[in-house]
Amino acid sequence: MKNGASNNKEKLDRLRQELGQMQRQLREEKVPLAIIFEGLDYWGMANDINELIRWLDPRGFDFHDMLRPLADEKERPFIWRYFLRMPSKGRIAVFDRSWYFWAIYEHYKSKDKTRLNHRLHDIRMLERQHHDEGTLVIKFFLVPDKERKRNDDEKVHCKGKFHLSGEEFIDDIKNAMEEWKEILDTTNYEHAPWVVIKDGDEDETAIIIIEAILQHVLKARSKKQNETSMRRYETVKVVKSSALDEVDLSKMISEEKYKARLEKMQQKLAELQCKLYLKKVPSIIVFEGWDAAGKGGNILRLTASLNPRGYRVAPVTVPNDEELSHHYLWRFYKMFPKDGMMTIFDRSWYGRVLVERVEGYATAEQVERAYLEINDMERMLTSHGTIVIKFWLHIDPSEQLRRFKEREEDPYKRWKITEEDWRNRSKWDAYKQAVDDMISSTSTKRAPWTVIPSNDKRYSRIAVLEDIIERFEDRLD
Amino acid sequence: MKNGASNNKEKLDRLRQELGQMQRQLREEKVPLAIIFEGLDYWGMANDINELIRWLDPRGFDFHDMLRPLADEKERPFIWRYFLRMPSKGRIAVFDRSWYFWAIYEHYKSKDKTRLNHRLHDIRMLERQHHDEGTLVIKFFLVPDKERKRNDDEKVHCKGKFHLSGEEFIDDIKNAMEEWKEILDTTNYEHAPWVVIKDGDEDETAIIIIEAILQHVLKARSKKQNETSMRRYETVKVVKSSALDEVDLSKMISEEKYKARLEKMQQKLAELQCKLYLKKVPSIIVFEGWDAAGKGGNILRLTASLNPRGYRVAPVTVPNDEELSHHYLWRFYKMFPKDGMMTIFDRSWYGRVLVERVEGYATAEQVERAYLEINDMERMLTSHGTIVIKFWLHIDPSEQLRRFKEREEDPYKRWKITEEDWRNRSKWDAYKQAVDDMISSTSTKRAPWTVIPSNDKRYSRIAVLEDIIERFEDRLD
Repeated sequence: MKNGASNNKEKLDRLRQELGQMQRQLREEKVPLAIIFEGLDYWGMANDINELIRWLDPRGFDFHDMLRPLADEKERPFIWRYFLRMPSKGRIAVFDRSWYFWAIYEHYKSKDKTRLNHRLHDIRMLERQHHDEGTLVIKFFLVPDKERKRNDDEKVHCKGKFHLSGEEFIDDIKNAMEEWKEILDTTNYEHAPWVVIKDGDEDETAIIIIEAILQHVLKARSKKQNETSMRRYETVKVVKSSALDEVDLSKMISEEKYKARLEKMQQKLAELQCKLYLKKVPSIIVFEGWDAAGKGGNILRLTASLNPRGYRVAPVTVPNDEELSHHYLWRFYKMFPKDGMMTIFDRSWYGRVLVERVEGYATAEQVERAYLEINDMERMLTSHGTIVIKFWLHIDPSEQLRRFKEREEDPYKRWKITEEDWRNRSKWDAYKQAVDDMISSTSTKRAPWTVIPSNDKRYSRIAVLEDIIERFEDRLD
Repeated sequence: MKNGASNNKEKLDRLRQELGQMQRQLREEKVPLAIIFEGLDYWGMANDINELIRWLDPRGFDFHDMLRPLADEKERPFIWRYFLRMPSKGRIAVFDRSWYFWAIYEHYKSKDKTRLNHRLHDIRMLERQHHDEGTLVIKFFLVPDKERKRNDDEKVHCKGKFHLSGEEFIDDIKNAMEEWKEILDTTNYEHAPWVVIKDGDEDETAIIIIEAILQHVLKARSKKQNETSMRRYETVKVVKSSALDEVDLSKMISEEKYKARLEKMQQKLAELQCKLYLKKVPSIIVFEGWDAAGKGGNILRLTASLNPRGYRVAPVTVPNDEELSHHYLWRFYKMFPKDGMMTIFDRSWYGRVLVERVEGYATAEQVERAYLEINDMERMLTSHGTIVIKFWLHIDPSEQLRRFKEREEDPYKRWKITEEDWRNRSKWDAYKQAVDDMISSTSTKRAPWTVIPSNDKRYSRIAVLEDIIERFEDRLD
């Protein structure tokens, strides 16, 4: 026994060195790793997690104590607070409780099976989407060994007192074993496996955990090298008739009518914003469109009567370094509205299947996958209750040329037009194909695209506001 | 009247163009601008703010609705949530309510004059420190015009309903006019002036606000160019006897004694962590020291028995792009612990007066200023109740050389030693001077430095833990 213990110490020392090497290798190769801890115990888990993270280089990992959502997080889709904490490239994220815990806890309290299934759907999406972009995920479930003797005097170790403040999480977790068993079976994916551990001797548990991590990383890494681009996605059906060709760009509205209707609609929007706020309904309005199609002007008319405390314009440009080091949807999650609030996107995640496709920043496989990923994400949003409205502002090439020239001549607007705009213009046909594919692949019943004829700015603005008002009123009925 | 209104429209159009130009100029020159709105009104303010921000380029500004702190923010120093939201280089931050509002609201409720004075001290620090690093600050106070006729039907505009959920903020704000008058007088700094506006006609108010911003920016920018390096700081007194020379580096402890004491102290620390957690006392432990002085090893011994849910190791290395675009203390604010939690800094804000001084990344003026800024910040932390413990791990050059060589020979530790370590070593004397100045300038009663003789690793670890235990117990008495 004495010998076994000292053997374990030596083995642990070696494993910790290997763990350090693995961490440095993942950093060099920019591979993110998520390590999840769930279990029936509370203090024992803390102990085991501490014995892992103490030996990681603190410059390269984040520890997330995910017991309960903050007030702020409760007003977002279920998956939101987890998605934002997924590790960026080359970093390790250690989750003390995860998406599983809260889904099961909710179900244990409410017995709402439908909601649990929604949660599991979102969880699959989270793990799958991150796996597909290169994140490694390993999940531990710790079962306390009844025989185990630990030095866990309550007074010394603050046992169970961290974060609990009176709620009976611990007993609830233990009693939810039936829920856990089913979940462990159905969510044991090859790309995100469960490792169930009898949480016994401290050193032995540490050895099992570190070995499992090293093996999973090794296996996933070698698999990835063999499998690169093995996966095939259905190519998008070629759309015979372009949705854009059918748009009647001659639609116009007179200055007089425009002014009268605009003011009324802006008042109406202020009223609807208030009602949605009081009913806690979040909304997302996406503006996509050709360069100079009038996104900015449209947004100015939309926000004219809104309360700034309830909306936010989210401009989407080139991602910064931090954003690039995360899943490509991460920066949009960050901007999703709280319940009752409105986010207006000036360009959006659809850049993945537009500019990134046309310019070749995303591979063909990534673009094909993106249609599914985006549909999944928008389904998740609408399931949460978010209104998702998407506009494509459509103009023709000659109208665009007219506006480019107008901008170049106006000293106050000259900064708005760049070399890039002219470059994009030269790729009109490629963009048109991308827009057609986007609309046919991501126009869903709950998050449809609306193509707005925008050669006439006044018509465009009125049509946009009309559509928004209609969608808002539909929800409030 | 009709003519006046249409004149105003034209003037507004022109001012909005100038505002856009100003924003682009600030971005180019990387100047941050903070615009603060306070006032006695509620809906009127929202309206005026909206009429400003709608015309800003959304890619370059952030809107902060600061009415009340979140639960999470209440467990930090008062100034924390504002400091983190100050604009980064080239960006504009618009604050709808600011640090003033909450300080006055607290005082209105509690009549606690001492606390108000603490708040005002922190506010001065916040505005001063940001001004000194180049941030422009302008503050508006809006007084509603009783004559004013606004279309502010409650049902239409959700008047007063945003964020209020039953609390009587609006009346409280109005009734706190006495508090406001005094504050407006005493905090009307040249570098962060108040502009008091009678909030009348919508267009007229918009004109006054935009003109005030343009003028303030113009004035501050031209002033800055004339004044560069005009300000003089007292140079640090030359310390005759070095604090480091007096350290007895021969102190040692035997392996046997070490093991026995270490385990006991680690148990004790777990107990104290729990007590501090339950009493909601936050703590900060700073490790500074020569390269290879044993910071990492010390931290490993400190965390061995701690609950990972209550502590966090914050490694401080080269700042990333986002951190560089903020005030140099910003990245440390982000890591300050919530009440009851512990943050262990592996290097810290003292880099400003160590590596940045020696390598010339900070100017002499910035270094002189940093001593004051750091003392101010630590005073702010200890006033909030945070325990601040600071260690300098001291070794001599020959011991460092021995450890460097040892690392180079160990395949598992080789990665730990870099070219930079050798470069730093060659500047031993310059660093020593910097350490001496740092200790004499920033060792305060509430946040003293402790120099730890660390030639013997065991002695160093025991001395560190002893000191921490003593400081924790002092607080708990």
